[in-house]
Amino acid sequence: MDDYTNTGNLKNAPRVSTQVYPSGKLTMLSREEVARLSDASQQVGEVLRRCALAVLNSGEQGDDAESMLAAFEDFRIEVHQVNRGMRIDLHNAPGHAFVDGKMIRGIRELLSAVVRDIVYFHTEIGPNPYFDLNEPEGITNTVFEILRNAQLMDARREPNLVVCWGGHSINLEEYDYTKRVGYQLGLRGRDICTGCGPGAMKGPMKGATIGHAKQRTIPGHYVGVTEPGIIAAESPNPIVNELVILPDIEKRLEAFVRLGHGIVVFPGGVGTAEEILFILGVLLNPANRDAPFPLIFSGPASAREYFEDIDRFIGLTLGEPAQSQYEIIVNDPAAVARSMSAGIDQVRDWRVEANDAFYFNWLLEIQPEFQQPFEATHEAMAALEISRDLPSHHLAANLRRVFSGIVAGNVKPNGVRAIRERGPFEIRGESDIMDALDQLLRRFVAQNRMKLPGGASYEPCYRIVS
Amino acid sequence: MDDYTNTGNLKNAPRVSTQVYPSGKLTMLSREEVARLSDASQQVGEVLRRCALAVLNSGEQGDDAESMLAAFEDFRIEVHQVNRGMRIDLHNAPGHAFVDGKMIRGIRELLSAVVRDIVYFHTEIGPNPYFDLNEPEGITNTVFEILRNAQLMDARREPNLVVCWGGHSINLEEYDYTKRVGYQLGLRGRDICTGCGPGAMKGPMKGATIGHAKQRTIPGHYVGVTEPGIIAAESPNPIVNELVILPDIEKRLEAFVRLGHGIVVFPGGVGTAEEILFILGVLLNPANRDAPFPLIFSGPASAREYFEDIDRFIGLTLGEPAQSQYEIIVNDPAAVARSMSAGIDQVRDWRVEANDAFYFNWLLEIQPEFQQPFEATHEAMAALEISRDLPSHHLAANLRRVFSGIVAGNVKPNGVRAIRERGPFEIRGESDIMDALDQLLRRFVAQNRMKLPGGASYEPCYRIVS
Amino acid sequence: MDDYTNTGNLKNAPRVSTQVYPSGKLTMLSREEVARLSDASQQVGEVLRRCALAVLNSGEQGDDAESMLAAFEDFRIEVHQVNRGMRIDLHNAPGHAFVDGKMIRGIRELLSAVVRDIVYFHTEIGPNPYFDLNEPEGITNTVFEILRNAQLMDARREPNLVVCWGGHSINLEEYDYTKRVGYQLGLRGRDICTGCGPGAMKGPMKGATIGHAKQRTIPGHYVGVTEPGIIAAESPNPIVNELVILPDIEKRLEAFVRLGHGIVVFPGGVGTAEEILFILGVLLNPANRDAPFPLIFSGPASAREYFEDIDRFIGLTLGEPAQSQYEIIVNDPAAVARSMSAGIDQVRDWRVEANDAFYFNWLLEIQPEFQQPFEATHEAMAALEISRDLPSHHLAANLRRVFSGIVAGNVKPNGVRAIRERGPFEIRGESDIMDALDQLLRRFVAQNRMKLPGGASYEPCYRIVS
Amino acid sequence: MDDYTNTGNLKNAPRVSTQVYPSGKLTMLSREEVARLSDASQQVGEVLRRCALAVLNSGEQGDDAESMLAAFEDFRIEVHQVNRGMRIDLHNAPGHAFVDGKMIRGIRELLSAVVRDIVYFHTEIGPNPYFDLNEPEGITNTVFEILRNAQLMDARREPNLVVCWGGHSINLEEYDYTKRVGYQLGLRGRDICTGCGPGAMKGPMKGATIGHAKQRTIPGHYVGVTEPGIIAAESPNPIVNELVILPDIEKRLEAFVRLGHGIVVFPGGVGTAEEILFILGVLLNPANRDAPFPLIFSGPASAREYFEDIDRFIGLTLGEPAQSQYEIIVNDPAAVARSMSAGIDQVRDWRVEANDAFYFNWLLEIQPEFQQPFEATHEAMAALEISRDLPSHHLAANLRRVFSGIVAGNVKPNGVRAIRERGPFEIRGESDIMDALDQLLRRFVAQNRMKLPGGASYEPCYRIVS
Repeated sequence: MDDYTNTGNLKNAPRVSTQVYPSGKLTMLSREEVARLSDASQQVGEVLRRCALAVLNSGEQGDDAESMLAAFEDFRIEVHQVNRGMRIDLHNAPGHAFVDGKMIRGIRELLSAVVRDIVYFHTEIGPNPYFDLNEPEGITNTVFEILRNAQLMDARREPNLVVCWGGHSINLEEYDYTKRVGYQLGLRGRDICTGCGPGAMKGPMKGATIGHAKQRTIPGHYVGVTEPGIIAAESPNPIVNELVILPDIEKRLEAFVRLGHGIVVFPGGVGTAEEILFILGVLLNPANRDAPFPLIFSGPASAREYFEDIDRFIGLTLGEPAQSQYEIIVNDPAAVARSMSAGIDQVRDWRVEANDAFYFNWLLEIQPEFQQPFEATHEAMAALEISRDLPSHHLAANLRRVFSGIVAGNVKPNGVRAIRERGPFEIRGESDIMDALDQLLRRFVAQNRMKLPGGASYEPCYRIVS
Repeated sequence: MDDYTNTGNLKNAPRVSTQVYPSGKLTMLSREEVARLSDASQQVGEVLRRCALAVLNSGEQGDDAESMLAAFEDFRIEVHQVNRGMRIDLHNAPGHAFVDGKMIRGIRELLSAVVRDIVYFHTEIGPNPYFDLNEPEGITNTVFEILRNAQLMDARREPNLVVCWGGHSINLEEYDYTKRVGYQLGLRGRDICTGCGPGAMKGPMKGATIGHAKQRTIPGHYVGVTEPGIIAAESPNPIVNELVILPDIEKRLEAFVRLGHGIVVFPGGVGTAEEILFILGVLLNPANRDAPFPLIFSGPASAREYFEDIDRFIGLTLGEPAQSQYEIIVNDPAAVARSMSAGIDQVRDWRVEANDAFYFNWLLEIQPEFQQPFEATHEAMAALEISRDLPSHHLAANLRRVFSGIVAGNVKPNGVRAIRERGPFEIRGESDIMDALDQLLRRFVAQNRMKLPGGASYEPCYRIVS
Repeated sequence: MDDYTNTGNLKNAPRVSTQVYPSGKLTMLSREEVARLSDASQQVGEVLRRCALAVLNSGEQGDDAESMLAAFEDFRIEVHQVNRGMRIDLHNAPGHAFVDGKMIRGIRELLSAVVRDIVYFHTEIGPNPYFDLNEPEGITNTVFEILRNAQLMDARREPNLVVCWGGHSINLEEYDYTKRVGYQLGLRGRDICTGCGPGAMKGPMKGATIGHAKQRTIPGHYVGVTEPGIIAAESPNPIVNELVILPDIEKRLEAFVRLGHGIVVFPGGVGTAEEILFILGVLLNPANRDAPFPLIFSGPASAREYFEDIDRFIGLTLGEPAQSQYEIIVNDPAAVARSMSAGIDQVRDWRVEANDAFYFNWLLEIQPEFQQPFEATHEAMAALEISRDLPSHHLAANLRRVFSGIVAGNVKPNGVRAIRERGPFEIRGESDIMDALDQLLRRFVAQNRMKLPGGASYEPCYRIVS
Repeated sequence: MDDYTNTGNLKNAPRVSTQVYPSGKLTMLSREEVARLSDASQQVGEVLRRCALAVLNSGEQGDDAESMLAAFEDFRIEVHQVNRGMRIDLHNAPGHAFVDGKMIRGIRELLSAVVRDIVYFHTEIGPNPYFDLNEPEGITNTVFEILRNAQLMDARREPNLVVCWGGHSINLEEYDYTKRVGYQLGLRGRDICTGCGPGAMKGPMKGATIGHAKQRTIPGHYVGVTEPGIIAAESPNPIVNELVILPDIEKRLEAFVRLGHGIVVFPGGVGTAEEILFILGVLLNPANRDAPFPLIFSGPASAREYFEDIDRFIGLTLGEPAQSQYEIIVNDPAAVARSMSAGIDQVRDWRVEANDAFYFNWLLEIQPEFQQPFEATHEAMAALEISRDLPSHHLAANLRRVFSGIVAGNVKPNGVRAIRERGPFEIRGESDIMDALDQLLRRFVAQNRMKLPGGASYEPCYRIVS
């Protein structure tokens, strides 16, 4: 009864049909903006519907998105214009989002955030020539604009936002550990930013609320950063009180590293490995050499082996300079929080010295290959160059794409279809690296970290060709 | 790992010796007040030490007060005067009250509350002739003065404080149920007031924090009302953000009913029965006939029998007028919260009409027999008149004393000694009532609700003499 | 010594050269936005310089803009990009804007508002195709966007903004009267919006501050609405705490009537007559028939005649329906405030019923002839149709243009030049109206309300051709 | 029309009879406290009535207290107990304290302060043995308790309270100068504390409001410190937003120097001379040698001579050590504010070092002769020892009594009667000092600073006997 949620057959769960006036940014729109929004909401109808449904289910157990979507297939959402502004009409919305017929305020905020980010930016960012999505500056400006529009940044706040990454389906011991780390961070006044789903995305927030409450620094900031493909599968946990939906995975990753002042990585699977390669690739960029960026890998004692595997792989591929970017702390939540706090103090000093904003890491350079989406096809996978002759931040970028492709081949519709039709991806590269990669992935399987639909035994979607 | 606390051998747990400046009311004292406080803190030394130790252990598991006191027998507290005001010196304080050497702010507040209530009122209330503790008005004024000094009352707040009573060692199912009720109350914007220990005193607060967070009404008010004999045994749970320590049990009960706008009673043992008789006796007083006071008994399905037993006993002894004072709701947290909210709305309307304060129930008449302590001796127990010829609020008062005596005979040092020396208390009265009482107490034993030191099988401390 | 300002020779007044970081909206810009701003600030250089100088002189006596501009001809302003955002560099700024070398915070806010409105909208509104300045809807959206960007509107505020119009060079008795009206409005919790210069634009704000202070509702909102041509001549008075600069006179007038919930007109000259015709023309539009809009003309006893003249002229030209739109209250500040408050309560009820916003009067229809600038040429003046055969809101629009043309012929560079070259404007129309107009203008001259450069005796710039 | 007040015949001014619920501290009283207050309000009836009438006339012109009291002789005030707390009934209260039948909120606060300080302390301080008014510590505790009860002190505020002393009937030039000093103090974020009447007690507050508004630090704190004999004659000016009424003149002076962090003395008469001797006597006390205490004498150019006279007299009597305690600044408001600000920064550092409170100057030693009232009789005046053989702080104390006696002989009922019956006071002492004193007083007469009832030519109430 962790979050006191309803269980049982969602299909027959109560429905509420009602009209809601949005909160936050959407309270003051011009009539034309409302008209555009109302039009656009029809174009992006299904995405809007799925995301809205996800937040209306915020706090409900289970991450079986498909069954949730199926259960509420009669749910509808429409955005209408009224004199005063906009009105959101909901039909057959899940009853657990309401109390005595009135929508829970936190859910109303999340729903407003969904409409704001999905629909508003469909009308404002897309058509605006200022946001050139082929240029690094244009992409970064887009990310900034979306975050500013979401009112996530506050010029008066000191640096204290800790990004937490890790798996959404970790085991109970690891989940408890993430709570304990969040608690220690909260006791030190730190806020939490995650991908906002369950597992390692929820535990740190949950722990931090207790730490914040004990230190009387509530409400803390519990920032959820997501994107349309993820939110439907991973409903925001009910602690999230600031939500933003970026248009795709790459902008979501950029949002994490520009907003956050440090990162803790908890255990996870291939997706977490992809995130690790992303941040290491960015930090290894010579342009970013001087800027401090605290990065800590941590888990309970039982996860020691996991991080040793990762560390060994990084040592082999990217070498000691990459290994020096992070610290591994096993089974010591207070040490994680102390080290992260010390690191954030350095970040603060550095921003002051460089005259950079506290709320957005403008000076961090992110290479185009980390900003541009990677489409995992057999051709693209086969073409990746995996060699220590590359500058290490380029090698990191290509390794990140390997992991990204494996995630796609495992679970994403396009990837799964491609594998079914043409057999496993072929990955080429230096044989030492290929061996290490193969070994790492087998360990993931052995540790039960390769999540598969239906729980079937793992059949690799790739083939190492050395 | 519910609250992320340390476990293991407290005896060897880390100690911190430090100096703390108090917060809240104690920040602005005259030099003479500080001097008086410092003097008085020596007179009330041991009580102060035990209570301070209890709050320094706030949030730590276990309610074995004795072992906690033993583990920290080297703990010392002193109150000193410095130019600016007062300073609290701690020696060998439990390390878990500190983060990186600095006391957790919430604990500093609770510690300040302890010093404020234990020491300050030893100097201000006791010697002041305005507070005549032999007169109902004087006792009520004392309770008011203590609550006002604790800054628990706020003239701008609407009525919304729900008092929750029930056992501190209920089973897990019942504990989860109290959380679910707290959650539903929190979703409806209600605050929680309890005895501030574990079990039914913690669950509703814990649930309410989630409800408040979802409705963005944080921080809620989580009011702990305790007294020196209880607090050492039942450390405040870490959610409590407003704490007051009344001088004795009767004033604590009066504080509950004057502060709260309604009461939910969860399952408990003889102590809970005593509380039920107290509130029923007050509400049956003809002077209080017109004032609404929502009173709900609730528990999970498994507690249905418990409340049926209680209800039957009340029906037999105090009759239908008493039964009409409360509502029994089984296994429906939302219904409890809805009914309580509706009741509180009535309380609000009534206070407006009667021009009574929202923050203190001045108009409620509490008979002297509920305000004066009852000393459970063989003579006093034998002399209690138990008869339906009495006005029902007097019968309720005497039945409350019976339960109070049994609690004393079971667990309180004086009572246990008296039983050991002179055998069980004899209780006389109408035979119907005596039979019902006997049956009720046997059911408590059968339901494992008679808590005994050491877990021995129950040997009754009373004998019914019909 | 009304505002404790420096006097004496401004030419030799102390200068300060310094760097300022903006406040408010400009604190969180993307790097590209800052770059655009910095570029644009060079294009709009002279307008920016004059407006910035005006606010740096806020609170200084005298409305001789030319001599002020001449005295500080060595003043320069530049907008630069730094890592964190933007920086405003000032060279030879007036020393009275600083205290111990630090810019007075209120002036920093006004300066930030100038940069925001002059430069930012040069980059954001102009090039954006959404704002079609040839369409009523596009113009209204532009006004809305500018006001929203200036953060002048707050969705949580109840309707209470009173617009005050009237002359900037009224006599002392009339000025004191405007203060007394402002005081009475302030006592009733009303906020003030004016053109933000001296005279009738300052008195009501000054009075309201005392009223607000007595009622403990400080800081009130003192909204200044201006445009680049006016601000340089009429420095914002130092009470203004919310400033917005619209691009031209027509959008400024639209901002007044969409923001404000009622209007008080104090005595003034031809410019005030123009404003009166504007609001009457809007209110006579049949589309606006049902919406309440409190409109009060008021002045001290000595101004009775002035309002009688105006009223007679309106009666003759626009008839009783126009006269029923306003109330004339002579020498009774409390009555003005009471009547305005009652009217605003009606506005509130009507907005609720019509589901219109409190902060922006969306439903008011403003005809294109009131939105489009009127260029006063001999041809345009001669072509104006002045006839009671026109619908009265069209006649009002044309009469407003007549007054606008006379203002131009009297004092605006283009108009004055045209008159010098081609003689007085010829105005044609129904003879009754022409006679009344002539008489009204002569009375203005007699009452010393036709302000002329150098104080020469008035030589009419128009000729009535009946 | 400085404060937009009614003028004309007060006798026929409108009356309002109504019931008011108090604000602030009085909102949460026990029933017994209300009962005691209600009783006590009858005992202190006339004092309460006069003080209440004074605040109800706050902001009205004129300091002719007698005529005001006469005009409203039908005014009555009663304090009643109702269920919820207390209610103040007013009969025939001045209409200008109300807007549309509702009392102006600021006036309601001042009225509540009057009831709080006059009546409440009559019941709480007087009878309480803790407050021994014969002992320095007891007197200081009383002052502290009254200020704390008035909620004038805030532990979180930095030192920034500037006390301004000077005459209440200074000329317009001097009045304007006090406004300009207040303005410069306000620009530097300083708050103002005065005796809260007109003249030098109002000007600095008025100026500070403009400075605070420009720096957006409103509302500032405008603290009025008065006593029952003064308040009736000098209605609080309407800017005062924190008012406290001490029981007598000596406690009022102690309140000034314990609350304030520095003092500016403007021109005044004998009363101001008395205040100067008071503060000099305190500062010359060797116990206070190390504590910084900024003290500035200032006025416009025309007041130069006045301060030269004072300075010469101090030099002659108390010598250079006394002269080194203050700075004289003529006609330079910004310099006053800069010097005062620098001094307050020193005070802050010193309090931190000495670990003394920011809000109350505990460490300042005030000799008993400054705390005990001085009753000006012929015997007491004749017995004063005026000799440079005394330690200078004792000589200062005796000189202060001389001035106090002259004030009494000039204007106070007892003193005037004594002079009429027994001729002028005889003052003895060293002839140099006596000559200097005589000369100083003659200059006061010449400068029109000896205020006399009816404006008669001055007949000295003293005779120097060398």
